[in-house]
Amino acid sequence: MTSPLENTVQVAAGDSRYDILIQPGLLATPAAWAGLPKSAQAVIVSNPTIAPLYEAALRRALAPHHAQISTVLLPDGEVHKDWVTLNLIFDHLLAHGCDRKTVLYALGGGVIGDMTGFAAASFMRGVPFVQVPTTLLAQVDSSVGGKTAINHPRGKNMIGAFYQPARVVCDLATLATLPPRELSAGLAEVIKYGPIADMAFLDWIEAQLPALMARDPAALAHAVRRSCEIKAHVVGQDERESGLRAILNFGHTFGHAIEAGLGYGQWLHGEAVGCGMVMAASLSAELGGVDAAFAQRLHRIIAAAGLPTQAPHMPAEQWLALMRLDKKASAGEIRFVVIDRPGSAAVRPAPDALVAQVIQRHSLPA
Amino acid sequence: MTSPLENTVQVAAGDSRYDILIQPGLLATPAAWAGLPKSAQAVIVSNPTIAPLYEAALRRALAPHHAQISTVLLPDGEVHKDWVTLNLIFDHLLAHGCDRKTVLYALGGGVIGDMTGFAAASFMRGVPFVQVPTTLLAQVDSSVGGKTAINHPRGKNMIGAFYQPARVVCDLATLATLPPRELSAGLAEVIKYGPIADMAFLDWIEAQLPALMARDPAALAHAVRRSCEIKAHVVGQDERESGLRAILNFGHTFGHAIEAGLGYGQWLHGEAVGCGMVMAASLSAELGGVDAAFAQRLHRIIAAAGLPTQAPHMPAEQWLALMRLDKKASAGEIRFVVIDRPGSAAVRPAPDALVAQVIQRHSLPA
Repeated sequence: MTSPLENTVQVAAGDSRYDILIQPGLLATPAAWAGLPKSAQAVIVSNPTIAPLYEAALRRALAPHHAQISTVLLPDGEVHKDWVTLNLIFDHLLAHGCDRKTVLYALGGGVIGDMTGFAAASFMRGVPFVQVPTTLLAQVDSSVGGKTAINHPRGKNMIGAFYQPARVVCDLATLATLPPRELSAGLAEVIKYGPIADMAFLDWIEAQLPALMARDPAALAHAVRRSCEIKAHVVGQDERESGLRAILNFGHTFGHAIEAGLGYGQWLHGEAVGCGMVMAASLSAELGGVDAAFAQRLHRIIAAAGLPTQAPHMPAEQWLALMRLDKKASAGEIRFVVIDRPGSAAVRPAPDALVAQVIQRHSLPA
Repeated sequence: MTSPLENTVQVAAGDSRYDILIQPGLLATPAAWAGLPKSAQAVIVSNPTIAPLYEAALRRALAPHHAQISTVLLPDGEVHKDWVTLNLIFDHLLAHGCDRKTVLYALGGGVIGDMTGFAAASFMRGVPFVQVPTTLLAQVDSSVGGKTAINHPRGKNMIGAFYQPARVVCDLATLATLPPRELSAGLAEVIKYGPIADMAFLDWIEAQLPALMARDPAALAHAVRRSCEIKAHVVGQDERESGLRAILNFGHTFGHAIEAGLGYGQWLHGEAVGCGMVMAASLSAELGGVDAAFAQRLHRIIAAAGLPTQAPHMPAEQWLALMRLDKKASAGEIRFVVIDRPGSAAVRPAPDALVAQVIQRHSLPA
């Protein structure tokens, strides 16, 4: 017999130490909820899509630990990841007499996790929070590592904090209810870990894509675990992205431009990252870090995961203007995460003309 | 001949180390601006009252260090310390293509410092900032120690971050232009350091009040320096207010209730703290930490500093409801900073009936 929590990844980021628990059925596993910060009040932050599915189970899990549990529902979707929505959390916390010990639980995908985390970082200058990610993307990427933020009309995740959760509880059973488009979006971030850090994992992903697309529990468990291990390793070395951590942004410079250019929520974040990785791989090949066959292979895997590989049409100047607002840019120079050899990434500038050529190659015509 | 920066207090809070420079004329002293984080862009955050007086001098001081310097002016006053105003900073930073290295300079009083600090903590998840406090209150208290925040309609400083500046530059010459009401408000926070930490300093303040009210440069220099030393010592032991740091909030539980109850900006923060200290000293005497003579002496000093000592009328239930939102409250129990013996403070609960009695004694009639 295995331990009730056999599948755990530990994160050590700055002064924080916490566990990522990965297993089906954790919402109904008492051990997954023991030992968290104690408080009279707990607040579940979720949305109207997720709450009907999992709020009751989460309340049952938390009942032994908090005398009062309330829920605040945020409107669903990236387009609402802004100050107005964030303020719904603050309003709720203050209307319910919450204090510095109140624990927030983020029940949902990346948008819920990012906003709950930033609310926890800022409410009374910091209260504890727990990530309970219910999408593949949140389980393999956004719930881990303490990046929290809201969007600004001029750019994604422009306002936020580095603020680590007390725990991440990935109940793999929640992936059963995920719409197919969201499953693909999550696979984009899983695929990402291969080219930047672990080519053996990319080989595994390529071989297991049919099982992953069919939501095979063992395949999903391995995908989430290995993704979290790589992310925890990177974040452990560079919590605040002074260097290495930026490699986790492979595909994101192009991807964020797609999201902001189309208006948040048109494409899912993972879809934009998938297409962005096709473009970033192409740029990597142009810069000589990998060969064209490598870029083509990545392109094929991304397409096979059900992700878009052609960007929407935008004028080149709009692309460049949006990418100059990227957080990696410095003194007006755009910097890209490129693959400098298979399994290894680096941050590099690239000539505007070359970038424009890559954009044109991978975009729909006007 | 003395060194150009002879009057420096060092702060060590968490992982941060920085200097508070205290001297007249620092805006025109190149050494005060050397060695700060380098960046192409700098942004001065100020308001229409302060900018005409000191912005040109600050630009001259910064010119050798940043290629581009821009200024964003926020509306003046505590009533504007909210998200709408904070967003003016984010809009400016993004419209000017600022990046993660951009340095923000907070030129003004506590409201400017608190908002610039929170903007710096949150913009792209953190950029460096420098405090250039131009009020006595900001020089002795709010610019030091890294507490940044905005207000929420339900409570003061409810949304913010612990985020340390890279340096605090207190040009004492700026106090010459301070309106008398603001000078008194600053003296409230100076007086505070006596009863909570240093009775010899309280003796000195009592003796030097006429000189301080007359803005004697030597008296102001000592008041700012000693205040910063005490604050740096406390913050160095407890950056995130898990315990000791709360003593710096002496008078603030009552004071914040006055500010929120009347509407922000009716009373200056320092005025509310002055009156709040009269009430907190009275409560301390009721609880037996000090005798009535001590409370009366503090009352006299606060009145002599030109501060109000009678609170506005509010129903007792409103007082209690406002104070239950205080950040020190826990599970609905209000906790007060009280003097447990002269020169030493502690955080204690108090019976509602006793608190109501203290409120009635020190409030204007209905």
